[in-house]
Amino acid sequence: MEHDQQQPEQSHEREQRTSASSAQSPATTTGGRPHRAGKRAPVIKDVAALADVSVSTVSRYLNDSPKLSEESRARIAHAIALLDYRPSRVARGLVNSAVQSIAVLSSNTTLYGSAMTIQGVEDEARVSGYPVTIAKLDGGSTATLRSSVNMVMDLNPGGVVVLNYDAAAREALAMLPDSVAKVAIAGDPVEGMAELDQIDLCENQAGRELTEHLLGLGHRSVVHVTIPGGGGGYSRTAGWEAALRAAGRPVPDVLHCTWDPKDARAIGRELARGDVPTAVFAGNDEIAMGLIRGLNDEGVRVPDDVSVVGFDDHPLAEVWSPALTTARQDFAAAGRRAARLLVERLEARSRGDDLPSRHVELPGELVIRDSAAAPRATSLG
Amino acid sequence: MEHDQQQPEQSHEREQRTSASSAQSPATTTGGRPHRAGKRAPVIKDVAALADVSVSTVSRYLNDSPKLSEESRARIAHAIALLDYRPSRVARGLVNSAVQSIAVLSSNTTLYGSAMTIQGVEDEARVSGYPVTIAKLDGGSTATLRSSVNMVMDLNPGGVVVLNYDAAAREALAMLPDSVAKVAIAGDPVEGMAELDQIDLCENQAGRELTEHLLGLGHRSVVHVTIPGGGGGYSRTAGWEAALRAAGRPVPDVLHCTWDPKDARAIGRELARGDVPTAVFAGNDEIAMGLIRGLNDEGVRVPDDVSVVGFDDHPLAEVWSPALTTARQDFAAAGRRAARLLVERLEARSRGDDLPSRHVELPGELVIRDSAAAPRATSLG
Repeated sequence: MEHDQQQPEQSHEREQRTSASSAQSPATTTGGRPHRAGKRAPVIKDVAALADVSVSTVSRYLNDSPKLSEESRARIAHAIALLDYRPSRVARGLVNSAVQSIAVLSSNTTLYGSAMTIQGVEDEARVSGYPVTIAKLDGGSTATLRSSVNMVMDLNPGGVVVLNYDAAAREALAMLPDSVAKVAIAGDPVEGMAELDQIDLCENQAGRELTEHLLGLGHRSVVHVTIPGGGGGYSRTAGWEAALRAAGRPVPDVLHCTWDPKDARAIGRELARGDVPTAVFAGNDEIAMGLIRGLNDEGVRVPDDVSVVGFDDHPLAEVWSPALTTARQDFAAAGRRAARLLVERLEARSRGDDLPSRHVELPGELVIRDSAAAPRATSLG
Repeated sequence: MEHDQQQPEQSHEREQRTSASSAQSPATTTGGRPHRAGKRAPVIKDVAALADVSVSTVSRYLNDSPKLSEESRARIAHAIALLDYRPSRVARGLVNSAVQSIAVLSSNTTLYGSAMTIQGVEDEARVSGYPVTIAKLDGGSTATLRSSVNMVMDLNPGGVVVLNYDAAAREALAMLPDSVAKVAIAGDPVEGMAELDQIDLCENQAGRELTEHLLGLGHRSVVHVTIPGGGGGYSRTAGWEAALRAAGRPVPDVLHCTWDPKDARAIGRELARGDVPTAVFAGNDEIAMGLIRGLNDEGVRVPDDVSVVGFDDHPLAEVWSPALTTARQDFAAAGRRAARLLVERLEARSRGDDLPSRHVELPGELVIRDSAAAPRATSLG
């Protein structure tokens, strides 16, 4: 925490402008601060008022525009010195500055996994003194996706974290320039992309372990209800299928759900009315909760009649009745690690070093609670 | 959605640099794009390679540094023209650009209300072509808070949205310079702050209505379990107290909970073991779920033995068993409205107009479901 408190302060030390027009001497600018009676730092408007020019004229001065009379230039320089005005990094041109920002690209920012990952990036980035910019990807079309990527890239971030949880994120990752430092969290491994580190949440392995857990309890097969965009060889869905195939069990069709637990509830009701499975692996905990509620609506009990397991270990998974058996994913740790990988890469660059692509595994953890049990005797017979 | 797809595209139209060194003619830069065979846009590294100078030399060129030989200057100008390189807005100096960013300050980014509000800001800002920067406030001390505010202010955002949900956010709001366009969402009204618009979620009114609903069912009083930082005259807690006082009923001590539903579960167990109330108003839906689970742990049924109502209308509130009676808050609408207010203020500024402070009310909506009922006859007698 000491680090946390000191680093950002250091990043606000005065920096000298390197451009031609910063003609005032350091002795003047670090002088008596005559106009700083209040707590408010002087802003560009104050400089404009004192120099009796418009804000946009001061802005032109700060960006060394040639469209400026020598007289205005002198008046603005004097006002800046009197006010001890410190132009922001952006006004000075961030390219010359040591501090850059970290951008996060994500299709969703409110779902538990995404929100926790972003919070992890923020927590770690703040410790290192980097501000964080979030871009919610608009996957409506390639054009809308590109404009949401461009909007954040125009801010010239030092590095980018992609929450590689769906197809839109994968496409956005491919749009990023080679030169930008990147970290992809989750998803299938990406080959041949420069300046890219990857964090593997090992969903495949956790999906396999959850399915094996259900088979170990005596279930003959497991139905899977997937989250949107939950495909790919490294997904939880792939792990489910691999476990069934390895055990020589039938692989039922995957059922598709939205992110809305109410839709999962409707699927639960349908399952209850049809050929009720003995075990269901839901793509995440909210879907598991919706499924259980839908099964209950039709008088089917969990785990007595059907076992239901979730994924992620959502804060409500333990509080739900029955408490959910699930696979814990440490999204916050993934976000923190992603920010650290980026910072390491940026620091290496500033020393002139190139880092190789790194691959970090953050395996989940099976959490056994009350929503899965052995199948009823009648199901076994 | 049409608007959504077109606006960001427009914001990426070519802009002419205004500085002295952009000597190449428009005819050359918009010409044949000889080096753009691949899909990748040229980056600063490509310019450096073609001009046979370092990246930092190109960066100095882009920022009109005087520390550059005429020969390098000419070579870089030629490379930029050949590659049709388009420096990012930051490289050109954002101050001269029409596009600015919107910053969001929030103590938390993962809780349902905060995450939905931020998503609303993002959705609306993207339509208007503004990137969004999120700063998670570090409320550890005034110093850490100030550095988290400074970090985002150094990016020179066009406007700031403060999720005014707790004490740290209130303090951060007070740190913002007068000159910056600001919107505060929720919290008590702020007087005398320049360039500030406020969005009132009318929590007070919703808290009062929920409490009146419980009194109307026949409950003599209502116990309140509050969320962290849930004070202030305009809070849900204030509405609860006002309703009890208006009805001449006893006002029990407020019980304090964290954001963690497991802690609410512990409070539910304690309530069940002691002098069980007939009605509880939980500060949010997750706390209501935890309370209900804790009451159930001890054999106390909801709503048969105790009525429990929540707040917010979380996506799982309807799926929970019993489905929660709650007050819906449209956080996404608040976020969208905040972004619109900021954009209006920024556009007014660019016309040279000043807008007065605006106050927008977004009242919640009572949602009656199954978790509250009339008290049992024994409680009435």
